[in-house]
Amino acid sequence: MADNVRLIAGAMSGTSADGVDVAITRIKGRGLQMSCELVHHHAHPYPPELRNRIFAVRGGGNVSLKDLADLGRDISLAYLRAVNDALAAANLRAEDIAAVAAHGQTLFHDPPNTIQWLDPALLAAEVGCAVVSDFRRADCAAGGQGAPLVPFADYLMFRDEGRNRAMLNIGGIANLTYLPAGGALDDVIAFDTGPGNCISDWLCRNHEPTGPGYDVDGAGAAAGESQTTVALAVAGGRYVRQPPPKSTDGPAMIALYLQAKRELAWQGSFADELATACEATLLSILKSLDLHLPQWKKAGLQDVLVSGGGVRNKPLLNLLAGLLSTKGVGVTALDPTLAQAKEAIAFALLAAATLDGEPSNVPSATGAKRRVILGSITPKP
Amino acid sequence: MADNVRLIAGAMSGTSADGVDVAITRIKGRGLQMSCELVHHHAHPYPPELRNRIFAVRGGGNVSLKDLADLGRDISLAYLRAVNDALAAANLRAEDIAAVAAHGQTLFHDPPNTIQWLDPALLAAEVGCAVVSDFRRADCAAGGQGAPLVPFADYLMFRDEGRNRAMLNIGGIANLTYLPAGGALDDVIAFDTGPGNCISDWLCRNHEPTGPGYDVDGAGAAAGESQTTVALAVAGGRYVRQPPPKSTDGPAMIALYLQAKRELAWQGSFADELATACEATLLSILKSLDLHLPQWKKAGLQDVLVSGGGVRNKPLLNLLAGLLSTKGVGVTALDPTLAQAKEAIAFALLAAATLDGEPSNVPSATGAKRRVILGSITPKP
Repeated sequence: MADNVRLIAGAMSGTSADGVDVAITRIKGRGLQMSCELVHHHAHPYPPELRNRIFAVRGGGNVSLKDLADLGRDISLAYLRAVNDALAAANLRAEDIAAVAAHGQTLFHDPPNTIQWLDPALLAAEVGCAVVSDFRRADCAAGGQGAPLVPFADYLMFRDEGRNRAMLNIGGIANLTYLPAGGALDDVIAFDTGPGNCISDWLCRNHEPTGPGYDVDGAGAAAGESQTTVALAVAGGRYVRQPPPKSTDGPAMIALYLQAKRELAWQGSFADELATACEATLLSILKSLDLHLPQWKKAGLQDVLVSGGGVRNKPLLNLLAGLLSTKGVGVTALDPTLAQAKEAIAFALLAAATLDGEPSNVPSATGAKRRVILGSITPKP
Repeated sequence: MADNVRLIAGAMSGTSADGVDVAITRIKGRGLQMSCELVHHHAHPYPPELRNRIFAVRGGGNVSLKDLADLGRDISLAYLRAVNDALAAANLRAEDIAAVAAHGQTLFHDPPNTIQWLDPALLAAEVGCAVVSDFRRADCAAGGQGAPLVPFADYLMFRDEGRNRAMLNIGGIANLTYLPAGGALDDVIAFDTGPGNCISDWLCRNHEPTGPGYDVDGAGAAAGESQTTVALAVAGGRYVRQPPPKSTDGPAMIALYLQAKRELAWQGSFADELATACEATLLSILKSLDLHLPQWKKAGLQDVLVSGGGVRNKPLLNLLAGLLSTKGVGVTALDPTLAQAKEAIAFALLAAATLDGEPSNVPSATGAKRRVILGSITPKP
């Protein structure tokens, strides 16, 4: 264990509930001196019926404990398949990895309460190694929002001595991590900007329940015409204006969109709705930069590095790049593999910290009162 | 850490959901060589409204995730108060203990699925030490019933080189651990015999919702007359006849009782129902000894040591002692403090094993395919 080098498989399923991303990472060092390298990335889609059950449970209705337990089992088995496929593809065995870092599926998040659903013992038994899971509770218990947790990894992987940099992840929700040039962990600003793809995904699920569940390559949005007043109502709403630290979730953003449609009495075609959702995402990102990142004007934000499923939405990315280039800010999509693997890598780093007994929340991002060790460790059985 | 001596606070709330028992234990050694000493026992009753919410959720209806999360929080805060009160009474601080072993509240148990509800990170943060929790999942993942887990502690604490001994715990459910003289861990037989106090408790809750929720000292049962055909229908039913390993829960036993009443078209007074419930418990214990412990006749069972809330039910204990004395078996109630603290002590021992990386399930009791390390460790934040 020279230099404390170990392999950890980060496994992440986000709020868009499209599946499990596994990032097998080689992690070196400890605490804020950790560095990491992506060994292999594997995306395992949830079966559509599992995705539908997750959305049904998250929809706010009531659920039986039997269905909830069955759901936890099936989520865990999807994690299992994802991790085992990733290990096989990377030609690794369970004995080669120190742990699986398993995010679990967010079913409920209303700090200080949070439910990240998973059976870590089942995963540990079937993969055959330790599992670190349930990362958000400890930050909530320390007075934080339990999110975002990725800024720790953003700081480790992307901070730069000379450049002011923002990491923008566009998943179901869009979130931003600002890393000032040469800054310390305490200088990190991070928060959910508002909707990512969640409104668009929801429109697609409703429009075509058996379809892919998202606007492939943003083609639908590109074909429609945005209703800017509706997009502005979402981007100018209470959530976006609220100062960080803050976090939100898909259902809240979808509700905002529906409220705006209702209040403005707007009905559009499916493509127009997709274009409007895309614009709401774009405007809420821009408005968030203006309101909550005054540094980006003064100190000069230099790079925006974009990750998450949103990088495949070319119209969105082009609009963002065009608008920010007029202010001298370069927008770059991360390498597609890294863009999709980044959150899973982040949880691998968080698990490494947990196994080392090191804290890994970023209080300036979550609002926690102190730095704490995140997660629970389920030993290799 | 000479001899690996450490203090662990075991915290247990059983299926009767009457509150949290905390046993602060001094544990020495590791694995099957562990010994332990009870430093302090403290019983913290659940507030009645919390108990009612637990029963409502467990009743089989549907629940919202918000209510479920709130319930987890309130259960965790009850654990917190219980542990903190126990520490204060024992003149100890959080820094003095290695961990809290927190069973959590069983909301659902249908192996391989099980939900032991608790927020370990909240407990770890507020007590200020590591928490080991969620002990049943790993045994379920190894093909076991996830119960009973107490036999490990029974074996460590009560095995005898010269005497064949059975530990009988009468909680909501009654369970039995048979420890043959000089036997190894693999020789242990353990299973839930059937109802403990769960039917009686349920009758009391329904009869007087604001009352104590149980038949105080068994006085109600003593005043009634048992309907033996109903008691026999419960004790002669499929569950009691089923060979171990096996486990059950309160709702299943209450359902059996209601079914027997219905099929035999019996309606009795409240006292008669309590007496019948008491007899159903007694008969299912005796029938279990006959059917599943053939050794008790051949090798000669010598001691039955009784623990759990049932030791306060004098009529039940006297009947059991009377009936078994005719077969040369001595029935002894454990010292009242030990009787009430035993399950909490057991979880302290299980947590000690987990922290040491030692397995602690008893496959002959749970039906698991292998010995495994139980529980998840949430570090001191």
